[in-house]
Amino acid sequence: MPTEGGLFDQIATDAGLLAATADSAWLQAMLDAEAALARAQADAGLLNPGDAAAIAAACHADAFDVASIGAQARLGGNPVIPLVAALRGAVPEGARDWVHHGATSQDILDTAAMLVVRRALSLMDGDLAGLSAACAALAERHRHSLMAGRTLLQHALPISFGLKAAGWLVAVTEVRRALLAVSLPVQLGGAAGTLASLGPHGLDVAQRMAGHLGLSAPLLPWHTNRLPVAAPACQLAMAAGVVAKIATDIALLMQSEVAEASEPAAPGRGGSSALPQKRNPVGCAAAIAAARRAHALLGPLLAGMAGEHERAAGGWQAEWETLTDLLRAAGGAFARTREVVAGLEVDPARMRANLDADGGLILAERVTLSLAARVGYAAARDAVEAAVARARAGGTTFAAALRACTPLTESEIGELLDASGYLGASGAMIDRALAAFHQGA
Amino acid sequence: MPTEGGLFDQIATDAGLLAATADSAWLQAMLDAEAALARAQADAGLLNPGDAAAIAAACHADAFDVASIGAQARLGGNPVIPLVAALRGAVPEGARDWVHHGATSQDILDTAAMLVVRRALSLMDGDLAGLSAACAALAERHRHSLMAGRTLLQHALPISFGLKAAGWLVAVTEVRRALLAVSLPVQLGGAAGTLASLGPHGLDVAQRMAGHLGLSAPLLPWHTNRLPVAAPACQLAMAAGVVAKIATDIALLMQSEVAEASEPAAPGRGGSSALPQKRNPVGCAAAIAAARRAHALLGPLLAGMAGEHERAAGGWQAEWETLTDLLRAAGGAFARTREVVAGLEVDPARMRANLDADGGLILAERVTLSLAARVGYAAARDAVEAAVARARAGGTTFAAALRACTPLTESEIGELLDASGYLGASGAMIDRALAAFHQGA
Amino acid sequence: MPTEGGLFDQIATDAGLLAATADSAWLQAMLDAEAALARAQADAGLLNPGDAAAIAAACHADAFDVASIGAQARLGGNPVIPLVAALRGAVPEGARDWVHHGATSQDILDTAAMLVVRRALSLMDGDLAGLSAACAALAERHRHSLMAGRTLLQHALPISFGLKAAGWLVAVTEVRRALLAVSLPVQLGGAAGTLASLGPHGLDVAQRMAGHLGLSAPLLPWHTNRLPVAAPACQLAMAAGVVAKIATDIALLMQSEVAEASEPAAPGRGGSSALPQKRNPVGCAAAIAAARRAHALLGPLLAGMAGEHERAAGGWQAEWETLTDLLRAAGGAFARTREVVAGLEVDPARMRANLDADGGLILAERVTLSLAARVGYAAARDAVEAAVARARAGGTTFAAALRACTPLTESEIGELLDASGYLGASGAMIDRALAAFHQGA
Amino acid sequence: MPTEGGLFDQIATDAGLLAATADSAWLQAMLDAEAALARAQADAGLLNPGDAAAIAAACHADAFDVASIGAQARLGGNPVIPLVAALRGAVPEGARDWVHHGATSQDILDTAAMLVVRRALSLMDGDLAGLSAACAALAERHRHSLMAGRTLLQHALPISFGLKAAGWLVAVTEVRRALLAVSLPVQLGGAAGTLASLGPHGLDVAQRMAGHLGLSAPLLPWHTNRLPVAAPACQLAMAAGVVAKIATDIALLMQSEVAEASEPAAPGRGGSSALPQKRNPVGCAAAIAAARRAHALLGPLLAGMAGEHERAAGGWQAEWETLTDLLRAAGGAFARTREVVAGLEVDPARMRANLDADGGLILAERVTLSLAARVGYAAARDAVEAAVARARAGGTTFAAALRACTPLTESEIGELLDASGYLGASGAMIDRALAAFHQGA
Repeated sequence: MPTEGGLFDQIATDAGLLAATADSAWLQAMLDAEAALARAQADAGLLNPGDAAAIAAACHADAFDVASIGAQARLGGNPVIPLVAALRGAVPEGARDWVHHGATSQDILDTAAMLVVRRALSLMDGDLAGLSAACAALAERHRHSLMAGRTLLQHALPISFGLKAAGWLVAVTEVRRALLAVSLPVQLGGAAGTLASLGPHGLDVAQRMAGHLGLSAPLLPWHTNRLPVAAPACQLAMAAGVVAKIATDIALLMQSEVAEASEPAAPGRGGSSALPQKRNPVGCAAAIAAARRAHALLGPLLAGMAGEHERAAGGWQAEWETLTDLLRAAGGAFARTREVVAGLEVDPARMRANLDADGGLILAERVTLSLAARVGYAAARDAVEAAVARARAGGTTFAAALRACTPLTESEIGELLDASGYLGASGAMIDRALAAFHQGA
Repeated sequence: MPTEGGLFDQIATDAGLLAATADSAWLQAMLDAEAALARAQADAGLLNPGDAAAIAAACHADAFDVASIGAQARLGGNPVIPLVAALRGAVPEGARDWVHHGATSQDILDTAAMLVVRRALSLMDGDLAGLSAACAALAERHRHSLMAGRTLLQHALPISFGLKAAGWLVAVTEVRRALLAVSLPVQLGGAAGTLASLGPHGLDVAQRMAGHLGLSAPLLPWHTNRLPVAAPACQLAMAAGVVAKIATDIALLMQSEVAEASEPAAPGRGGSSALPQKRNPVGCAAAIAAARRAHALLGPLLAGMAGEHERAAGGWQAEWETLTDLLRAAGGAFARTREVVAGLEVDPARMRANLDADGGLILAERVTLSLAARVGYAAARDAVEAAVARARAGGTTFAAALRACTPLTESEIGELLDASGYLGASGAMIDRALAAFHQGA
Repeated sequence: MPTEGGLFDQIATDAGLLAATADSAWLQAMLDAEAALARAQADAGLLNPGDAAAIAAACHADAFDVASIGAQARLGGNPVIPLVAALRGAVPEGARDWVHHGATSQDILDTAAMLVVRRALSLMDGDLAGLSAACAALAERHRHSLMAGRTLLQHALPISFGLKAAGWLVAVTEVRRALLAVSLPVQLGGAAGTLASLGPHGLDVAQRMAGHLGLSAPLLPWHTNRLPVAAPACQLAMAAGVVAKIATDIALLMQSEVAEASEPAAPGRGGSSALPQKRNPVGCAAAIAAARRAHALLGPLLAGMAGEHERAAGGWQAEWETLTDLLRAAGGAFARTREVVAGLEVDPARMRANLDADGGLILAERVTLSLAARVGYAAARDAVEAAVARARAGGTTFAAALRACTPLTESEIGELLDASGYLGASGAMIDRALAAFHQGA
Repeated sequence: MPTEGGLFDQIATDAGLLAATADSAWLQAMLDAEAALARAQADAGLLNPGDAAAIAAACHADAFDVASIGAQARLGGNPVIPLVAALRGAVPEGARDWVHHGATSQDILDTAAMLVVRRALSLMDGDLAGLSAACAALAERHRHSLMAGRTLLQHALPISFGLKAAGWLVAVTEVRRALLAVSLPVQLGGAAGTLASLGPHGLDVAQRMAGHLGLSAPLLPWHTNRLPVAAPACQLAMAAGVVAKIATDIALLMQSEVAEASEPAAPGRGGSSALPQKRNPVGCAAAIAAARRAHALLGPLLAGMAGEHERAAGGWQAEWETLTDLLRAAGGAFARTREVVAGLEVDPARMRANLDADGGLILAERVTLSLAARVGYAAARDAVEAAVARARAGGTTFAAALRACTPLTESEIGELLDASGYLGASGAMIDRALAAFHQGA
């Protein structure tokens, strides 16, 4: 396969997805739509099977010149018009009149869009499956790897890294399931959505065309009901948000001062053009960048829903490049996050060291609640806050400060400051996340 | 009910939805979460039922000062901290320590958000149901009201107004169904999502709390898995797009030169501050404006999905006002569109007059296809284009030009230019849309 | 020039702008930055001029393989790292170590971005100049072409088409001026923005590098101060809004029932794949679609402003494709709108016919104000509203109804209903707009 | 002043800005527009001064009921229509007819918007001035406070904290200047932008009205040229990006493991509802959240630029709440960032400790470049990378590893690993930033 990649688009997006969403893929998808339309009309008895086969036989993208069709698209405002002209020229004269018969440009482009989305979603599902499995493996393996839970970027309470990975897993599982459930309908409505030029055969032909392409048959043509575009786009945007969260976490864990996890090492990976010692979170950065692009690209698709009458003047035309870029961006975010998580280097010792670095302050809530059982919450909170302040002032440990400020004994304090005893339902939560994953996998 | 409305927000949004999303409603929802938490802990045997009842008894919003709690929210960054302090002051001393026990601020705010969303969605469903019914009535009533189908704002082919309304109906039915299926989970995770402060009872308490509130129990706390916020937001954004399409169509139909339909008349409605003769599409404009706002407000909710670690520093905090405004904007768009469609004044005679205004040019496709059966598509298209040009040049009708340019007879031409015979599957499509509506209703 | 165009991107964007923003143009711009850096260091005495010349001599994009550099960009997260390696391989050994000396990847990419933006803006200025001139010509030519002014899509008061064009002109003039004033600074900061590796020569080298490239020298490196990217992006987004307004107006004027103006005719232009009689506003639709894309693409550039510390992890990386697409989309919107306006077919007779179609109702305000001078505003408005209602009910003209409902004489009424006498300051406004245009042109 | 604040909006936005953008402020601004219009007509000799004074005397917001006017706004689609009716009722009968004379609703609302924006910008300028001064003070004070420069969240090279603050300063200075330069024009065009109802006096009245309000007089009415709204909105969005960058940096510096700077301490500030030891970056989180909201709110204002004909049906109506929220969000982001920076607690010792923590690895570039002068860049980079690997493997320091892997002497190594000697142009850059600040201040 010749590369479809350019200077920037290969950073996040894999070659497979670039190819599946390339202009040539769109062109083939449009031709697939034309071929299926001809076959469907033959099935319905409108056209003889030989002519349909002749049309279908001409529907190969490599026989057409993308750049030239694109240049001619300017005149009529979409590439179907020149494509149909070229396709007519490529079929035997007898079949020529049946090329595109009954269809309008939007029928072909919308159907092609659904085919491109389907192929892209199928590639993405591989990455989401791999990402789920990688999250599940981390959740299992690091069930007992203690680390600081951080809220608003501050140490809050102990968690395990397994629980963090379980949280990622639950969200990935959910968006993967939603993407698999997306409905992708064929489009066939004719010039104004009535199927008039197919006489009494319109709905039958549409149904058969859907069957040929493995798409669903919609209740009605959806020329200006853009839910079939907006719905997968929304799901992709949400899924991009889910993986951006994972990438954000990992980039933060990789910080020089934190150093609890790291993107997989490879020669040259994460290197700097100037700094020999650096190892950048390049996969995370690429995923975050791609996710942000995906979010923005949802905009024109939502705005385009308010299309005028039976075909929009602007809203529809904004979809083609936007959808392509959205597929590439979201898919790129999935792929890079999968790669990072699957090869993640985790340092449980550093996690533990960071957790312990403040001498147990992170367990102040636990001490407070334990003490509150004896002296009431308000008094307990006051006493613990005094101990926190004393420890923060330096010269003493939090344990010693608690001895001074509270009636707790040394052994009670020792037990309360043991992070491994204050993980709550973490274990059960990890089990839940894994069970849901295995159920869905 | 004292008005919650201000200078601008009543233009699109009804008083009920304004009230359901007002600060006081959020406050009550937070208190409902605290009450349910206390009750759940009593159910689980952690707290005696009397203390739980005492806490619940204090959980009434009108006992608290929104403005003051809001002012104090600045210090800690969210309103739960001052609310909990105030609530503690309002319950008997024995129960005081159990207020907010086991919870973190985000547990309360996120649970409150789900309650506010649920209430808002319930109000919106009334409007979407009403809108569906109104679309269905138009589809049925105007099954045979012929009009011009318009693509890129140009006459394309005849349709019926019933078919247009059926198209609206299908989209509204679909988004209504999706909104009803949205999952709204309780939030309870404690300070870092481990439920540690509830010891072995955490998941049990969460489940019981969900039960008290009629929310679902999530697999895991979702402090930084924001799908429960993003998913309804996406559905609302799509539904806003669906109604904006309807409002756009109607505003276009109301244009002075088109005048095929009109917003319902009422004294003062649609009036101008300067122009006595005007009747503005004020409902449509309000719906379109609100839908655009809804689309934009999705942005921070998607961006916020990439929350850092166990609680976000910025992403979460951007949700509260954004979600409130999104509910109001989307709900406003639904309500105004319903009102417009339910009272729509339709002028079938004008539709017919506009359809006929170009003397049948709108049926050029039909003539071409009919002729193509005799002379081939290319020759037919050439002949019809010649007739179109001749008619456009003036001095003759399209029918006469067709006589001159084609072998068609006058009676053939007469039949071909009868729009009522070229509606394709419109009738069947209307039936489908109505059947789907009645199934779902 | 081989086409850079694909299936969709040629619909709005001209070949010149596609080429100026293509991967190969980015690559050349990066090489231009490297060459200027070497020359600047030679000027500053750090490097001998022969070595600088040798480096510059190797800086030709056609000697490098975009797809291969793009593929390698994945490892380090940006294309500069593999480009520098390739460039080092292409210069004589003695000069090799001075390739990229003192710079970090972002220095090269950001400088390249400014060069790409500058080239694109220069092309766009041609289109905006042409668009201004076309608007000015319309404003002058149609100074007295009366038409209906429309608010909320309803007839409001008479205007002239010249005034409408003057309004377009004022906005285009303003955004053109703002785009010409955009500041495009060189980027040179080294690995952390201190210019440390250039010792005492850093700021001097940066200044000289700017000089070689014709860019401005910034106060400080702007690795995480993204105003140099965000500011032109905002201006482009606003300019896209300005032309989308023009395209929207024209698409509305082209509607079958309005038919007051039309995109230029050309064989095949605006044609339909199915409908022989259609002439679609394809240029307007393309411009509107492109403008919407431009608006959305601003999002990641604004979000990326909040970059972390000395180089962002995600925000910066989201810029490259986003900025490229934004330039293409905005520039495409300008080009298509220019083309449409420059060739606009205006039908003053139809404008006049539409204006007159309601028998003078559009002058109801004028009648009211004239009458108010005699009977007071409230009474006048009541009387005119009664006449409006009577005329609307049919069977009489507005003039006759005014005779019946008001004390106005027939000749007074005749004069009041003469639209040409109620254009207010339209003429002076057209003069103002033209004067401002000629001043700036 | 009774509080205008609610549950959430006080978290980021100060009471002053809330009041300046409240419904009551909008109402007063609309009344100010009506008063100025009357006065301008008196100045122009259209109206006697006593009647103008009577109208102006009635233009006090507290005489009108916001909620009631808001409720009535639904009918006509904007609040000016009911306000004018109420205002007419409040002036003596002789002057009544001159209320709103010559104006359309949009004239009043757009002028009011400019007044609200002006007042808000004036308040914001105080915060941006304070923020600039605080950045300048940090830049000066911490000119020599060494810290790690971080790119992609990894240690890159040494910088000083003063340089980081200087970078903030430059950006804040630039956006402040741009906001001060924003042009805010009066709006007066009458029902279709022709000023027809003012006869020959239209432009004169508009000019005088601008003078009364201290607004600029536009070339033409701008009913559908929305640059006067979009331009300040874009500047605010960029400024929000600038402060979000500062807040992001500080939140990252506050992380438990980094701990180099901290938001100002105050009783209760940054506290947690559950965790006694926490100190959250609440100001930063609020600023980041507000900035994201500001970015999103730009969307409908850009989309609204494509308004139809002489007044938009949806685009304009989406502005009022959007602009209000944008002012509040951006202003809130400015205020909270100012507060955080002005009270920032900086820990230079911790900065130094973090900088030194890796034993000089952060100076690997310096060592490489120094060594390259002897052995060439490629050999130097290989040797330094070997030393980096050895030091990372443990058991030895980077200095010792360099001894082993390079010909550098111990004293050379000592000098090269002294971070204070590798700050490049940092000092000069700080001077530049301060000079530009003092120039502008």
